[in-house]
Amino acid sequence: MTPREPHDPQYAQRTRDSFARQRVNATLGITLEEVAPGRVVVAMAHRPELTQQHGFLHAGMVATALDSACGYAAFTLMPADAGVLTIEFKINLLAPARGPLLRIEGVVKKAGRQISVVDGEAFQHEPGGERKLIATMTATIMTITGRDDVRH
Amino acid sequence: MTPREPHDPQYAQRTRDSFARQRVNATLGITLEEVAPGRVVVAMAHRPELTQQHGFLHAGMVATALDSACGYAAFTLMPADAGVLTIEFKINLLAPARGPLLRIEGVVKKAGRQISVVDGEAFQHEPGGERKLIATMTATIMTITGRDDVRH
Amino acid sequence: MTPREPHDPQYAQRTRDSFARQRVNATLGITLEEVAPGRVVVAMAHRPELTQQHGFLHAGMVATALDSACGYAAFTLMPADAGVLTIEFKINLLAPARGPLLRIEGVVKKAGRQISVVDGEAFQHEPGGERKLIATMTATIMTITGRDDVRH
Amino acid sequence: MTPREPHDPQYAQRTRDSFARQRVNATLGITLEEVAPGRVVVAMAHRPELTQQHGFLHAGMVATALDSACGYAAFTLMPADAGVLTIEFKINLLAPARGPLLRIEGVVKKAGRQISVVDGEAFQHEPGGERKLIATMTATIMTITGRDDVRH
Repeated sequence: MTPREPHDPQYAQRTRDSFARQRVNATLGITLEEVAPGRVVVAMAHRPELTQQHGFLHAGMVATALDSACGYAAFTLMPADAGVLTIEFKINLLAPARGPLLRIEGVVKKAGRQISVVDGEAFQHEPGGERKLIATMTATIMTITGRDDVRH
Repeated sequence: MTPREPHDPQYAQRTRDSFARQRVNATLGITLEEVAPGRVVVAMAHRPELTQQHGFLHAGMVATALDSACGYAAFTLMPADAGVLTIEFKINLLAPARGPLLRIEGVVKKAGRQISVVDGEAFQHEPGGERKLIATMTATIMTITGRDDVRH
Repeated sequence: MTPREPHDPQYAQRTRDSFARQRVNATLGITLEEVAPGRVVVAMAHRPELTQQHGFLHAGMVATALDSACGYAAFTLMPADAGVLTIEFKINLLAPARGPLLRIEGVVKKAGRQISVVDGEAFQHEPGGERKLIATMTATIMTITGRDDVRH
Repeated sequence: MTPREPHDPQYAQRTRDSFARQRVNATLGITLEEVAPGRVVVAMAHRPELTQQHGFLHAGMVATALDSACGYAAFTLMPADAGVLTIEFKINLLAPARGPLLRIEGVVKKAGRQISVVDGEAFQHEPGGERKLIATMTATIMTITGRDDVRH
């Protein structure tokens, strides 16, 4: 991937501000770790109240963090007045999310004027220091302008 | 769709029991509404703490409910000793999830011995009584047997 | 699905004309069977020169017919001067495509101004008259206007 | 990606033999360029008889080559007596396939006993020597054993 030039020099602050307005992140414990042009990293811990029937993090929790990482990766490259909406995503679950910690990364594959395509990867960081890929996502993201209900 | 014959006559109770063990459902307020062979309906309300930056339910919340509906729809047709794991899913987000209430349905398209394919639809029930399709999912679900960490 | 009102009263002829310009259809033997607002049916026969290593139709051949059915289903509801482009699709392959005949249907789930979402189903028609669902698709389709290289 | 050890030391010949039995490859002009453990590259030229209505290669043609690259990438890591079947794939189309030449690569992300997940990328090689990413795929591939109709 070549480095990308953001349209908006304030892209990092704008991304952090929008992420902070996603109330679901505080509820689930998803934190914003890194913001770069076309790339965002979030983190999430295994919590018992977010598990499915076998005690792993529910696939939907991993999908939530991946979707946020992918959406905001696209958002870093958008104009200052644009909003971001996910049109669709696909997730493959490669291994159970046992925790204790996940780091989830979104990287823009194509930044279009209207449509961006972003790949996400969720890594599990295990106590011994090992890193394991547990899920991948591809998300199709739309740049929204001129809509009062969808901004930033 | 032709009606389907479940392998396990206790499929409904088995499904309700497993759903009750998914702690994420209580956390997010996802409730199990209907269980039939090859079909499951869950419900979910808009809650401010589950929203994204525009005040809509986060796509990951809708995906969580859809994944549970799809997974358990497949589970109703599995043998009594089988566990269920989602291999992958794809979601299309057709309209913002404003609430106040979502009903989410999973219907099995193909029940295979190892692999099942399930379609999901999320409908928003608006105050005036209107019902609107806001998201669709296709999920690929695996039947797991003989693994101690994945049962029921 | 409620019946849909096409923007363009000439939608059927416009769709047939565009389909006829897709040279791949003649090459692979894909034919346009039905055109209705928001719904298109195509057909395709098993041919030995389109098979994979086990003698079934290659998944890509089924995907080609499904993508055309989905894209043109969206096209029927577009303005007269619009072009259609597939942004992405996902296909689930439920059973091997043995032939002899496939009928493939695309039905619009959401017709948006820019983005449409279309579901496709491929049915195998077997000699005894049985009909079997062998593949499903969800496609995200974009309405293109004002681009010289993409029209009709 | 760490290098992977194939189960079958004859993986390369086995892959070339199976690819040669896919008659669709000869029909569409898809050629096998590279075979390594967990990675396969195929090539394909733009041909007028494979185009859609705007003169670009039809999305289904790109999907066919990507599916073959992904399926055979998984196949390189399978036991000698296994067959390979695609369960599902998703493709994002990033730019029109104008040609003249495409190189399509499949790389295994996870090689499981039953389920493998493979990422594919299609690059367009333009006359000036530029290389452009025009499509990405994620494919879920199944290892099949003990079925007479699906081997190698």
